[in-house]
Amino acid sequence: MRIGILGYGNLGRGVESAIAQNADAELVAVFTRRAPESLKINSNAKVLNVSEIENWKDKIDVLILCGGSATDLPEQTPKYAEMFNVVDSFDTHAKIPEHFENVDKAAKKGGKIGVISVGWDPGMFSLNRMYANAILPEGNDYTFWGRGVSQGHSDAIRRIEGVLDAKQYTVPVESALEAVKACKNPSLSTREKHTRECYVVLKEGADAKKVEEEIKTMPNYFADYDTTVHFISLEELKQNHSKIPHGGFVFRCGKTGLNKEHNHIIEYNLKLDSNPEFTSSVLVAYARAAFKMFKEGQTGCKTVFDVAPAYLSPKSGEELRKTML
Amino acid sequence: MRIGILGYGNLGRGVESAIAQNADAELVAVFTRRAPESLKINSNAKVLNVSEIENWKDKIDVLILCGGSATDLPEQTPKYAEMFNVVDSFDTHAKIPEHFENVDKAAKKGGKIGVISVGWDPGMFSLNRMYANAILPEGNDYTFWGRGVSQGHSDAIRRIEGVLDAKQYTVPVESALEAVKACKNPSLSTREKHTRECYVVLKEGADAKKVEEEIKTMPNYFADYDTTVHFISLEELKQNHSKIPHGGFVFRCGKTGLNKEHNHIIEYNLKLDSNPEFTSSVLVAYARAAFKMFKEGQTGCKTVFDVAPAYLSPKSGEELRKTML
Repeated sequence: MRIGILGYGNLGRGVESAIAQNADAELVAVFTRRAPESLKINSNAKVLNVSEIENWKDKIDVLILCGGSATDLPEQTPKYAEMFNVVDSFDTHAKIPEHFENVDKAAKKGGKIGVISVGWDPGMFSLNRMYANAILPEGNDYTFWGRGVSQGHSDAIRRIEGVLDAKQYTVPVESALEAVKACKNPSLSTREKHTRECYVVLKEGADAKKVEEEIKTMPNYFADYDTTVHFISLEELKQNHSKIPHGGFVFRCGKTGLNKEHNHIIEYNLKLDSNPEFTSSVLVAYARAAFKMFKEGQTGCKTVFDVAPAYLSPKSGEELRKTML
Repeated sequence: MRIGILGYGNLGRGVESAIAQNADAELVAVFTRRAPESLKINSNAKVLNVSEIENWKDKIDVLILCGGSATDLPEQTPKYAEMFNVVDSFDTHAKIPEHFENVDKAAKKGGKIGVISVGWDPGMFSLNRMYANAILPEGNDYTFWGRGVSQGHSDAIRRIEGVLDAKQYTVPVESALEAVKACKNPSLSTREKHTRECYVVLKEGADAKKVEEEIKTMPNYFADYDTTVHFISLEELKQNHSKIPHGGFVFRCGKTGLNKEHNHIIEYNLKLDSNPEFTSSVLVAYARAAFKMFKEGQTGCKTVFDVAPAYLSPKSGEELRKTML
């Protein structure tokens, strides 16, 4: 399958390297809003300005959209779903129903497939929540994130006056994790589930105490959490905090039996050295699924819930049954 | 959906209690090879001899087959897939391709759906192996089982002369689990992955030393493992070893990045108080899927790889996107 990428940030670069790991996929073009000649990519694909994208309608089987969820994808995914099979990682949970409707309309109009909200949350975590709920109708769900870098929280710190740079780690509370694993079905407040660790580089002359106060009291982002702030040098930030690891846990603790006497715990967990590269790897697997579904004549918007697992694999049904079942 | 059960052992009873947890499912009939009046069941369903099953063609939406994989299912699943939508838990991995072909032919002939090899392994473990392989094409897979009761190994001990009763636990080796979780990609022999713990009740006058020797050297079952044998009283066996817990772990450790510099670990794990009740819960979710696929006009044999996740849930696509994605 011939793949195009729109947007060449962390995610776009991740998709490029994931494609190199899949023998049935080929990266043919990278589209950018920047000047194409300013982009140095890691493969032999063409680099083009996004204004040329319509000319590639018949030369690309799936377009992977690597923009952001805030402003890029709500516009791009419906727009390009009319011309291409598309896959995106739209992750604004509350706006997924609206995004789904827009993409569905466009994809059906164009006779294409649009797979949205692919990655790990939404994505693999959603799948595991859904499977576990279908299997154990009576029970409790728990999702923990981390230990990992939250880009949104890091950005929020960077916007504070006096801050030169920052990284924020979301950390699950060990005792909460243990209580869930022990099937105690705890009720956990926001504060009891995660802590937040901030590594902050100050601008010269900035007031550390004031910055710390501003971080810890920031509504939505930090006020509801136990937050620790470490002031470090720019060198230390670059040396020890330049990676973007992440991960987390999805649990369902359920009961079965005539008297609900048996407990069961389903746990799915991810430990990822690179958040964008893992997300990209999921995107490429769903690009394969999109192309297979398109070739079968299916159209419209799909989420991970709508895609039969076998579509993700390069193996045939026969091979899968023989080797994986 | 109206459900029928064929076979009322541990699994059949588990399906019965799982149905009581699903508001959209109703158990209408239990079929048995025994005399119906000898069966005491836990619901208001009819109990009938299997010879009457054909009369229920139009009164049952899905028939859940709760027989054994050795001799029951290879015959029953193809036979009844011609008359009913069926779901089974066929778990002889090596014979799945053959079973698939037989069920596929019968289900297509009858215009029905047959979902085979549903449970946790094969089943949820297979799904997780497959998803993880599609996402991380370069990596290693590890499956560990336990700590839990292996019925097959317990039965093998019971067949030894001088043994009155026995329970066998399969136990993952902690150091092997730790090496996998630490992304060390170890090469593990059979002996390095699991140990086997046996609790054995001797008949009067039996030779303990001889029995222990016979267990530990039994080919396929014990010879390749570090096995410990504990001789206990019948009372102790009943008191401490009457439950049938199980579980296990599926890992994929994979690499991404231009220089394969990033490690990722996907882990799925189950801790089950009751192996048959969990398997039954999976069977009921796939019964729902079978009926939905049938209503859409699909026919033939399916495995967990072929069933889009949303089919398993009683919720609509819209509800799922809103609450689970």
